[in-house]
Amino acid sequence: MELLEQKILNEGRVLSESVIKVDSFLNHQIDPVLMQQIGEEFSDRFANKGVTKIITLESSGIAPAQMTGLSLGVPAIFARKRKSLTLIDHLYSASVHSFTKNETNEISVSKDYISSDDTVLILDDFLANGQAVLGLMDIVEQAGASLAGVGIVIEKGFQDGGKILREQGIRVESLASIESLVDGKVTFTKEEASV
Amino acid sequence: MELLEQKILNEGRVLSESVIKVDSFLNHQIDPVLMQQIGEEFSDRFANKGVTKIITLESSGIAPAQMTGLSLGVPAIFARKRKSLTLIDHLYSASVHSFTKNETNEISVSKDYISSDDTVLILDDFLANGQAVLGLMDIVEQAGASLAGVGIVIEKGFQDGGKILREQGIRVESLASIESLVDGKVTFTKEEASV
Repeated sequence: MELLEQKILNEGRVLSESVIKVDSFLNHQIDPVLMQQIGEEFSDRFANKGVTKIITLESSGIAPAQMTGLSLGVPAIFARKRKSLTLIDHLYSASVHSFTKNETNEISVSKDYISSDDTVLILDDFLANGQAVLGLMDIVEQAGASLAGVGIVIEKGFQDGGKILREQGIRVESLASIESLVDGKVTFTKEEASV
Repeated sequence: MELLEQKILNEGRVLSESVIKVDSFLNHQIDPVLMQQIGEEFSDRFANKGVTKIITLESSGIAPAQMTGLSLGVPAIFARKRKSLTLIDHLYSASVHSFTKNETNEISVSKDYISSDDTVLILDDFLANGQAVLGLMDIVEQAGASLAGVGIVIEKGFQDGGKILREQGIRVESLASIESLVDGKVTFTKEEASV
């Protein structure tokens, strides 16, 4: 997605060979027009897949999920990272380790909002080692729902999450895929056909 | 906002005289079309106030903030509840106690995204005792920015947050204001003119 790649080049800050900060438009401040375009792009890529629900993980996945839900005409669910006092049982749960934050979170989705009748599109802001997506897939499987695929705003192509998922035959659509962050420079992977 | 009140009546689950759960469309699953209408309503109510930035708090404020930002044509920022490894300094911070979750969070916003040139609209999903909004106002003040007002999706009119804010002369616009949750029944406050 050309516009997203331009935004990453213009505003992304490479902090190391594995970390890029895109807080100006995705992870802290949100560019609402870009989010709308991201939603339309995911909607195009997963059109006619019978998606009935979108699932993401709080917090950075919420704006893209909201916009994709609006485009596809389906609800978006954000998995919670901690159990709150008003969301304590009747849950599908999975453990997700974040290497960036060096912590493991229990993520959970209420059984009220996903069932075996659903076809689920998983969305997330970043794909690195794939831990968050695998946790969300675990929840989709617990619910007996079908998986339409995985939509990622920015894939770190030099980490193995994308490979792990694609080897399982899962359709992964990344709107921007970073091949390398070496020497503070962002290099994108050429877009490939998905499974 | 009639449509929101209907949604609360139809789908809200009253858990006690002070807690209502609206996880089916706002706090866990999101109704994207309702969020769009909420964004348009906030946009109408704060039109011509010179808003340059929207600030909310992760996670439930993000979808309304995204849609209001899209309508007003301005970026939306979500304050972080914990410091992450990629967002560690150069911050405005404030402490916010959540009585629902019985915990105190440090909330923070990067100094990169709010300045004395900004006119800020604070948005949140619920207004109860006002702690979250007061924390966000603290950050707006630290930045030397102007406050356009406060937009709330659901105000608990029986708690004192709204009163505290309005007594300070702050414009508070609540799209639904609950007067009482007694006997498991939701009663709305009649809409009043704001300051």
